[in-house]
Amino acid sequence: MSILDYETVALNESRDAMRIIDQTLLPGRTEIIELKTAQEIWDAIYLLKVRGAPAIGVAAGYGIYILAKKIADEVNSTDDFYAEYSRQSDYLNSARPTAVNLSWALKRMDGVCREAIEHVKASPVNNALLYIVDRLYDEAAAIQQEDIDTCKQIGEYGLSLIKPGDGLLTHCNAGQLATSRYGTATAPMYLGHERGYGLHIYCDETRPLLQGARLTAYELQSAGMDVTLLCDNMSASLMKQGKINAVFVGCDRMAANGDFANKIGTLVVATVAKRYGVPFYVCVPSSSIDMNTPDGDHIIIEQRPDKEVTEMWYNERMAPEGVKVYNPAFDVTDHELVTAVITERGIARAPFNESISELLSKPVDKGV
Amino acid sequence: MSILDYETVALNESRDAMRIIDQTLLPGRTEIIELKTAQEIWDAIYLLKVRGAPAIGVAAGYGIYILAKKIADEVNSTDDFYAEYSRQSDYLNSARPTAVNLSWALKRMDGVCREAIEHVKASPVNNALLYIVDRLYDEAAAIQQEDIDTCKQIGEYGLSLIKPGDGLLTHCNAGQLATSRYGTATAPMYLGHERGYGLHIYCDETRPLLQGARLTAYELQSAGMDVTLLCDNMSASLMKQGKINAVFVGCDRMAANGDFANKIGTLVVATVAKRYGVPFYVCVPSSSIDMNTPDGDHIIIEQRPDKEVTEMWYNERMAPEGVKVYNPAFDVTDHELVTAVITERGIARAPFNESISELLSKPVDKGV
Repeated sequence: MSILDYETVALNESRDAMRIIDQTLLPGRTEIIELKTAQEIWDAIYLLKVRGAPAIGVAAGYGIYILAKKIADEVNSTDDFYAEYSRQSDYLNSARPTAVNLSWALKRMDGVCREAIEHVKASPVNNALLYIVDRLYDEAAAIQQEDIDTCKQIGEYGLSLIKPGDGLLTHCNAGQLATSRYGTATAPMYLGHERGYGLHIYCDETRPLLQGARLTAYELQSAGMDVTLLCDNMSASLMKQGKINAVFVGCDRMAANGDFANKIGTLVVATVAKRYGVPFYVCVPSSSIDMNTPDGDHIIIEQRPDKEVTEMWYNERMAPEGVKVYNPAFDVTDHELVTAVITERGIARAPFNESISELLSKPVDKGV
Repeated sequence: MSILDYETVALNESRDAMRIIDQTLLPGRTEIIELKTAQEIWDAIYLLKVRGAPAIGVAAGYGIYILAKKIADEVNSTDDFYAEYSRQSDYLNSARPTAVNLSWALKRMDGVCREAIEHVKASPVNNALLYIVDRLYDEAAAIQQEDIDTCKQIGEYGLSLIKPGDGLLTHCNAGQLATSRYGTATAPMYLGHERGYGLHIYCDETRPLLQGARLTAYELQSAGMDVTLLCDNMSASLMKQGKINAVFVGCDRMAANGDFANKIGTLVVATVAKRYGVPFYVCVPSSSIDMNTPDGDHIIIEQRPDKEVTEMWYNERMAPEGVKVYNPAFDVTDHELVTAVITERGIARAPFNESISELLSKPVDKGV
């Protein structure tokens, strides 16, 4: 089964359940699970069965739509409907309080819900609750479609920078599993694969949580690509041999000057790529560019638990008891190491201070 | 217990057994085991209970000495002695056929054995076998002492390049556990610690075999140093913050121009150090410099099994079945990334083509 055969997050045909790949079972087992109740959806988000900012946003949209549909069957007034809708929306939002896309999507759905309620109050329709629920479906589908469009556009722009047969390196998982489709850093790879580019993909395993090994290698391999896994300390050896033609990475947050935070180790890959003259591309939806952050020094880096490095995944503790551990979740890559920033609006190159703000002021171009 | 309280390889007081730290149990358990029989010594080398080129050489020297002592108790003629001695020497040598220091040490011991036999044949002594066995002890002790002297001199030269309070990064294990004492890359750290430098040591965990986490962090911590463990992809983040004042690494083989092979990932650390202006020092006994190898392109790199990356250490397989794996044991670091080469004979700086051959032509300087 290729991962491209289904969306990371999707509705079933009768639109009363959400289907997701349970990412906690990867890469050992590929299992599509159906979520119907508020508790099931909450658990899936909380337990990281669905993860990645865009994918969480889509899951929130479809999740609250499914719940709204059920509420509509159980109440008789729009007021009762909205009271219960709000309660369940708040509940979902509590699954990962710091996940921006979760609250962003639920807020967007709430806005549509209230607009629809106002609409049916102002100009009554045949079945008010059905009308509201339909608007919620439209909005959830729009969130997903926008994510797919964004990733696809990033893929098209990225693809314009590579050629058939290229060797491409990526770090961590900015893949389809983190979005609705295509991923961000992986989008040029999926599109290139669809178009017979015969790419050779190299995945950093990405310690300590091994997202590159567990997720990226899995999803690209299951899509039929030629994938090679390596440890994070092997990229220089590959680049020295000329096996890497370009690096594509995702981005958690980009500052106005092009500095950006991404999974720890991205700065190492960027530094090595610079030395060996390998183009280094950052794939980022324009929504992740924060023009209020002037540069990378203003991005605060989360430190994570020691045991991710010393124990997690292992049969036994792999480091002495009591040793101190340095385990930042992200590092910040300087814009001077970046060859180009690829967004759904186009490609920005140095000087990034100018090119990025120029890109963001342009409307989205739907055809490359 | 500090690791400095004992040698990695030592004789017991009655000199009829060799004591080693069983490195296969680290870092979970520190267990000193005694080896008396040929089988026990062979197993310890074969099963990597003792490892690291210099330490294997010392174990071979003391090992064949212990066996020679026993043989001397069981035979009556020097001819019978040498026949059995040779048999047991060949047996030990088969434990790791490709470990150069194993055969090197056994050859050296064999030479001394034959010289001693010739001597007692030419000018008879009171107890011929005792005389021979004593010469073997002297030679084994000399092998160990030379290793200690080499490491200590490397440490003194290395220490001259750092200052109290410095943060030092190392990769893999070129530590005391790989030598008799002090290690090579760790020698400046041990000496600095003995002299109250208050150093802050950072250890790359060193995937895939985790020697940095399992061995280096263990030995430096047990010696009482301030040790912080990190994943291999975190060095750039540390250097960017100015926390690393120098990098010290070991060396498996250095070419005449200063290019050198060392554990995979060394080239990554060197590249990152260059970017952040952090001095990068290679600690290498002059015996590991091969003047017949003109440059790094002539060093052949061993590829290791996939499962070290995908399965080893883990509770379950951490990568999809069938994924290709790139797993070279070493990489080659270009001399232009090297700030200085530290040997027991002194410090070489660019141009290395000249400075290294100059160093090698000098006699060893016993006092820095």
